[in-house]
Amino acid sequence: MKRGDRVKLEKERVDFLFIPETEEMYPEEYQTYVEVEKVSKGLCGDFRPGHFRGVATVVAKLFNIVKPHVAVFGEKDYQQLLLIRRMVEDLNFDIKIIGGPLIREQDGLAMSSRNAYLFSLERQKALSLYQSLQKGKELYEAGERRASVILGKIKEKLESTKGLVLQYVEIRDAETLDRIETIEGPVVIALAAWVGRTRLIDNIILGR
Amino acid sequence: MKRGDRVKLEKERVDFLFIPETEEMYPEEYQTYVEVEKVSKGLCGDFRPGHFRGVATVVAKLFNIVKPHVAVFGEKDYQQLLLIRRMVEDLNFDIKIIGGPLIREQDGLAMSSRNAYLFSLERQKALSLYQSLQKGKELYEAGERRASVILGKIKEKLESTKGLVLQYVEIRDAETLDRIETIEGPVVIALAAWVGRTRLIDNIILGR
Repeated sequence: MKRGDRVKLEKERVDFLFIPETEEMYPEEYQTYVEVEKVSKGLCGDFRPGHFRGVATVVAKLFNIVKPHVAVFGEKDYQQLLLIRRMVEDLNFDIKIIGGPLIREQDGLAMSSRNAYLFSLERQKALSLYQSLQKGKELYEAGERRASVILGKIKEKLESTKGLVLQYVEIRDAETLDRIETIEGPVVIALAAWVGRTRLIDNIILGR
Repeated sequence: MKRGDRVKLEKERVDFLFIPETEEMYPEEYQTYVEVEKVSKGLCGDFRPGHFRGVATVVAKLFNIVKPHVAVFGEKDYQQLLLIRRMVEDLNFDIKIIGGPLIREQDGLAMSSRNAYLFSLERQKALSLYQSLQKGKELYEAGERRASVILGKIKEKLESTKGLVLQYVEIRDAETLDRIETIEGPVVIALAAWVGRTRLIDNIILGR
């Protein structure tokens, strides 16, 4: 657990913290894994092998230990949120999953514990993520429905930011994460980029 | 559900039967699977690809739907029983797993719904499974501890039974299913064989 998180949670009057040790959760003979196949593919899944299998597995374990009625996961990790929704549905967990809205700093940067790693100049460059998504939103609101056109404009903005290395930007169905060419229902524009040595993700939902 | 099972269960004064349809359990968009890696390998796992992934997944689903305090699985499907024990431990299901003893017909044939498929002559040949395991047990009780020697005698018996095709016979640690050469702690002798068009399994635990 990150330093300071406990203090922040106490201020929010959280009654219980459950912070198991790795050795308790994954003893030597551990061998069971949960895979959510389709939703784990593409986007962050292509760049972080095994990551979503780890997420699904640990969340299944935590659900069985804590037995919550509701659980909140942030929309900033949008693929993770959908993966958990899918797992809960598929494995029949009797738990209500609530998506917590993505919260931004005043200048638009999506809040993340990783932002603390950004040097001041990097912090400026990182704003391009939000600004490029805003550009996409404006195009959408002006009536553009071709994913390729919107993505083109977003990439233009991101690629013009020196020191920012785009990993991916994609427009996908907001519920299934299916690839789409023309925006009809709700979609997510999701992206990941390196700013210096920090990997950042951001997204925006359109048409919800 | 097999014909007649419902009647038998009613006679045992079972209050509830939960028999979901495949389409309810696995709707079109279904994509989540539970894998118990090590215990699924070898024995039946090598001959039935995907089988134990299916077992782990459906049992996890049933556990979340039914929310039982205890669940009983037969020791006849010994690998399956260990797989479920391992999954329950690893994924922290708050459920007590009880192993139901393997029950035999008077002549020694392990009870199985599949026995109904055996023609009368096949039924006789199938007895070799039990008899060969008994031979293994006698050797063990006479002090033999070399797995290879015991397996040799079992195979001899099975291979002398015409019309019976051995798939595997192995001696493994009864708790971890690790391969062993010398019997020290409790072990399981497990085997699978085809008798005509019917695949049968049987096992015996030694040193428990």
